[in-house]
Amino acid sequence: MSGAQIGELRRVVAANVRRLRKAKGLSQEAFADDCGLHRTYIGAIERAERNVSIDNIERLAGALAVPGYELLKP
Amino acid sequence: MSGAQIGELRRVVAANVRRLRKAKGLSQEAFADDCGLHRTYIGAIERAERNVSIDNIERLAGALAVPGYELLKP
Repeated sequence: MSGAQIGELRRVVAANVRRLRKAKGLSQEAFADDCGLHRTYIGAIERAERNVSIDNIERLAGALAVPGYELLKP
Repeated sequence: MSGAQIGELRRVVAANVRRLRKAKGLSQEAFADDCGLHRTYIGAIERAERNVSIDNIERLAGALAVPGYELLKP
């Protein structure tokens, strides 16, 4: 079992989404519009509060113009 | 919006999980035990039927001994 450390990967995603969104000069609201997601959901992702699904990783990565796996890279 | 292609990333995850599981010589059942997930859930992931969450990507990757982002790499 690998249960002990679960939650680390969503912190990686949180940090990457925030970093890449800011690098594009986008507010959470503008970025949420680009993703087709809600602003409060983006905020929760960036605080590592949400267990994001792979389909939404794809939406976030698409709006950031990076491959999906880049959002999971430490 | 990037909605047109949504679903491609879960097909990438499906193929990677199946490939890496087989490379370890594990049945879906044995692998499910290693992940702490159900055998039918592993089957559904490998058929790209499930919108896997990032916490479960972390569990799958942990059991396969690869970094989480490897499961999203085409």
